[in-house]
Amino acid sequence: VSLLFRQLTICGVGLIGGSLALIARKHGLVERIVGLGRTQANLDVALARGLIDSATRDPVEAARGADLVMLATPLMTFPETLAAMVPHLPEAAVITDVGSVKGWVVREIEPLLGPRMAFVGVHPVAGKEITGAIAADEELYRNRRVIVTPSARSTLEAVAKLETLWRATGANVEQMTPEAHDTILARASHLPQIMSSALAVTLADEMVDGRWAAGFGAGGLRDTTRIAASSAEMWRDICLTNREAISAALSLYRKSIDDFSRAVESGDAAQLIELFERGRRMRERLK
Amino acid sequence: VSLLFRQLTICGVGLIGGSLALIARKHGLVERIVGLGRTQANLDVALARGLIDSATRDPVEAARGADLVMLATPLMTFPETLAAMVPHLPEAAVITDVGSVKGWVVREIEPLLGPRMAFVGVHPVAGKEITGAIAADEELYRNRRVIVTPSARSTLEAVAKLETLWRATGANVEQMTPEAHDTILARASHLPQIMSSALAVTLADEMVDGRWAAGFGAGGLRDTTRIAASSAEMWRDICLTNREAISAALSLYRKSIDDFSRAVESGDAAQLIELFERGRRMRERLK
Repeated sequence: VSLLFRQLTICGVGLIGGSLALIARKHGLVERIVGLGRTQANLDVALARGLIDSATRDPVEAARGADLVMLATPLMTFPETLAAMVPHLPEAAVITDVGSVKGWVVREIEPLLGPRMAFVGVHPVAGKEITGAIAADEELYRNRRVIVTPSARSTLEAVAKLETLWRATGANVEQMTPEAHDTILARASHLPQIMSSALAVTLADEMVDGRWAAGFGAGGLRDTTRIAASSAEMWRDICLTNREAISAALSLYRKSIDDFSRAVESGDAAQLIELFERGRRMRERLK
Repeated sequence: VSLLFRQLTICGVGLIGGSLALIARKHGLVERIVGLGRTQANLDVALARGLIDSATRDPVEAARGADLVMLATPLMTFPETLAAMVPHLPEAAVITDVGSVKGWVVREIEPLLGPRMAFVGVHPVAGKEITGAIAADEELYRNRRVIVTPSARSTLEAVAKLETLWRATGANVEQMTPEAHDTILARASHLPQIMSSALAVTLADEMVDGRWAAGFGAGGLRDTTRIAASSAEMWRDICLTNREAISAALSLYRKSIDDFSRAVESGDAAQLIELFERGRRMRERLK
């Protein structure tokens, strides 16, 4: 594997961007890495850990010389960040992102590109409980899924380079359309999040005879509400940018909840076994 | 602590009953422990591990001399098991159970008792992924909740003895009515189970563009569906015996899901933050 890009500018040197920086540098895939950030403290950590060669809070400075720009800030700030950079980027710069929603990003980003620029959407399906440059980890992506979503402004060459870059992380890289990505992730990721948060909301103030009901939950309640502790801002953005697919996933889910409700209310033993067994088999398959 | 009962007969020497047997014996709280079981293989394990002094598959034999009977088989088999034993029990035998639902058990069990017998419902809120006598563990109950639900046929003396027995496990023992127990557990335990199983059911056969959507889930999907792998028979019984409280809990939950659905559909950013934040704070409190 040889040099893919001269200068990678990472906008948002957190867990996701910082981990990729470590790997790109280790494999010699980029010559130089610039970090664009909002807070100097995090940029200082990124510099101290050697994730980036230089740091700036100025998008114009960050744009100069970047033949690859990776958008790794909160999803809904991508357009504003990129718009400030575009006039100062090399003519044929490649833009990529690591957002959890792809259709919205393609629709918002592609109109901002200069005529010779390319865009390649990427979603590395990985995460950790801690965030920021401090959390960057070169093993973060190993054996995880990285989804590449070619769109109208993706060139074959840019897609090939991005796939080479991401394969170096040890992840399983695969392609799909932005629409398929958003439909799948609405079911496999966004639905579990809303379901978990909705349970936490339901039990937040639920008192029975002067006792907080949730205090009587065991491992099951803990497991099912763990992700309810995630960032509200991140999930607001995902909900706002993937509305249709999430609404459809919630409708599917509501049908299952209704099936259980009816079986409970009517005391239908056979139907209860059928439903719990179907769920059990799905979970076995997931292992 | 001194001897509480001469002979404890445990009906169902699995994880819950077997663990209690280990502890009762260690602290010298009972003189002799008899195990009543369906399969000889599990009883042989219980004997080999010293959980019980003798084993039988005959309820009449299990009843003889038992001044304490602990029902620890699947919930809905309690009445049949106890009915077969009652004519052969000592006149003043104490009956207890470890079921996850209490109102139904009280209603079914109390009419079966001889005139001088007492019943004390208990729910130790604990569990492990493995079951059977092989899984018995004297640390299972440490710092967990054990809920005692006195009812019409509970005597003060029997309640006091059962509480002493369960305190020896290192658990936090507390009393509430069977109704409060069932209402609380419907929210803190039964609702998370149904929610998790309903998610697993929703995604069981969900294909998008030839791909199994659930295969793209990460830790969040894994956490939220972990308990969907639980025993279908156990959860059928819980649903059948705690119908009203579970239906009420599901109605509360559906309201939260509807709140999220409306916020997603209308793209209400402020309401999304409000909901996700409320869930986040609840989860922080749970830790």
